[in-house]
Amino acid sequence: MGGDRGPAAVVAGLVDSAQADSALHFILHGDEGILRPLLARHPMIADRVEIRHAPRTVTMHDKPSQVMRHGEGTSMWSTIDCVKQGEARVAVSCGNTGALMAVSMIRLRKLPGVNRPAIACLWPSRNPGGFNVMLDVGADIKAEAEDLVQYATMGAAYARNGMNLKRPRVGLLNVGTEEHKGRAELKVAHDHMMAAQEAAGFDFVGFVEGGDIPSDRVDVIVTDGFTGNIALKTGEGTAKLISDLLKEAFGAGLLSKFAALLALNSLKRLQKRIDPRRVNGGVFLGLNGTVVKSHGSADSTGVAAAIRLAAQLARSGFNDRLAARLASAVAAGQDAAVQENGQEK
Amino acid sequence: MGGDRGPAAVVAGLVDSAQADSALHFILHGDEGILRPLLARHPMIADRVEIRHAPRTVTMHDKPSQVMRHGEGTSMWSTIDCVKQGEARVAVSCGNTGALMAVSMIRLRKLPGVNRPAIACLWPSRNPGGFNVMLDVGADIKAEAEDLVQYATMGAAYARNGMNLKRPRVGLLNVGTEEHKGRAELKVAHDHMMAAQEAAGFDFVGFVEGGDIPSDRVDVIVTDGFTGNIALKTGEGTAKLISDLLKEAFGAGLLSKFAALLALNSLKRLQKRIDPRRVNGGVFLGLNGTVVKSHGSADSTGVAAAIRLAAQLARSGFNDRLAARLASAVAAGQDAAVQENGQEK
Repeated sequence: MGGDRGPAAVVAGLVDSAQADSALHFILHGDEGILRPLLARHPMIADRVEIRHAPRTVTMHDKPSQVMRHGEGTSMWSTIDCVKQGEARVAVSCGNTGALMAVSMIRLRKLPGVNRPAIACLWPSRNPGGFNVMLDVGADIKAEAEDLVQYATMGAAYARNGMNLKRPRVGLLNVGTEEHKGRAELKVAHDHMMAAQEAAGFDFVGFVEGGDIPSDRVDVIVTDGFTGNIALKTGEGTAKLISDLLKEAFGAGLLSKFAALLALNSLKRLQKRIDPRRVNGGVFLGLNGTVVKSHGSADSTGVAAAIRLAAQLARSGFNDRLAARLASAVAAGQDAAVQENGQEK
Repeated sequence: MGGDRGPAAVVAGLVDSAQADSALHFILHGDEGILRPLLARHPMIADRVEIRHAPRTVTMHDKPSQVMRHGEGTSMWSTIDCVKQGEARVAVSCGNTGALMAVSMIRLRKLPGVNRPAIACLWPSRNPGGFNVMLDVGADIKAEAEDLVQYATMGAAYARNGMNLKRPRVGLLNVGTEEHKGRAELKVAHDHMMAAQEAAGFDFVGFVEGGDIPSDRVDVIVTDGFTGNIALKTGEGTAKLISDLLKEAFGAGLLSKFAALLALNSLKRLQKRIDPRRVNGGVFLGLNGTVVKSHGSADSTGVAAAIRLAAQLARSGFNDRLAARLASAVAAGQDAAVQENGQEK
């Protein structure tokens, strides 16, 4: 209900997904009086969509702390509760990110051993799969060294289950690749990731720079939520600027227009490759349940992409695997601590 | 001497600049045995280039702290000293950024009232001039609220003198535009910039996001050196990825190649617009002297662009104007403090 384009875009994306994947079932949360007419046009999927009436809507301007305390009765709250009760395997929302994280935290609770949950996004890259994972891109504005190490474990689990990478390569975002560079907590996190890579099942490639985010020398980029959010939006803004300039360039002059017509297929392929709607879906990691956050401004294509990602994660049993991995990483950390203490004696 | 492409690229850029702008004179620092043969091929500009022999070179791997203590006799040290002695109006270097900042700090010293100097870069944007200013992009990995306010004053002075903007619009980079968002120091800096805008001669537009960096709602983007460096390299990396994909797209299939041929002019115009070599040159702000840091990997085009920027700043008397503006901002801050104290009594 609370996305920038309203419930019509969400329903349209749901309909596309239901038609593309006949095994999917949906529980749609929101104002029944608005949702029922939107669905009525699609009788073919009626038996796979249940409407769950929620009288209230979280808007983009609501403060997370307010929604956390007084959010009951909103479509967002109802959606997350549905995952908590085990009725739904995964939640998808286009709403207020901060509020969604707050409601998810309070209803689903953090996985054992997790201090700060994170939001992971996919980033177009030079890797064979076409995408890299970056986290945190905005769950929290800060992260201690140990949070960053957990992000590495969680991001690697996501890459393993969501992208079929057996042993993802993890890099820690910094202003240089030399080991003496960057903030104090990054140097600590660097050493801890080096030690954690075996138990957590990833290869640590060390520090990476902003230019490496779309590169093929890394699969998972770890950073704090402030830096990650700035990087994500900077990348999107740059891609949008170039795409607009490209359109402008091909719009100028008859010859260019003719050329663009000829090059249409090439340009379409490129546009598809970097289309942010195709990689739509930030995944909340570190909670007892999977939540996929679609872009607030997602259209039906974007919503369908988020649903596809959600379905894939649910089918792979991602969250159970992540929980197991975190538990073993914690155990390995304790073992290491015990060993260290033993040696000290 | 210490750039990625060695002295040949620097000399080639110098020759291009000298030919394009007959009023420029150069003092070229480095190993005379290497530099003299490179220059010998260009007798036309011989009377405008003086070689200053420096036996040692700062490499990309040298630690700034080491160079600061033992850098005498390097071409970098000699270059900065030349500005300190008033022999040169401005310094240009392709070398190790951290070392260059360290040497500049210790030899030129900070301008009165400046706590942390900053590096400002130009960013392709939707503004009529084609570029926005962003700082700090890597002088220091952290910044307090008062440093950010000084960055605003310095960035605005740069935009006024380097880009002829009478009253630049300044934005503070954050993870959202709402006033309650972000880290504590950003909220403090927000309020102080609001108060400082009159005296410092800029319009404060409030918080901006990563997507606004190339936008036309702001001229100067202020952030700490860690975030700025990540954003800069992320933007460059994204632009490079898209440009490579574009080449790939137009290389695939005969029809696409034919189209690319037809669209050549449009594509060239676009490439020129986003070519990082055209905006080559980070400017060190807040020192007693102007230093332009070219990309380490700059070719002759990049070096020439850095020299052009350096010449423009030297001719506009930029550093004296910046010093005056900082002094009046400090005075205004003291006046405000006195007034506040007066009202409190």
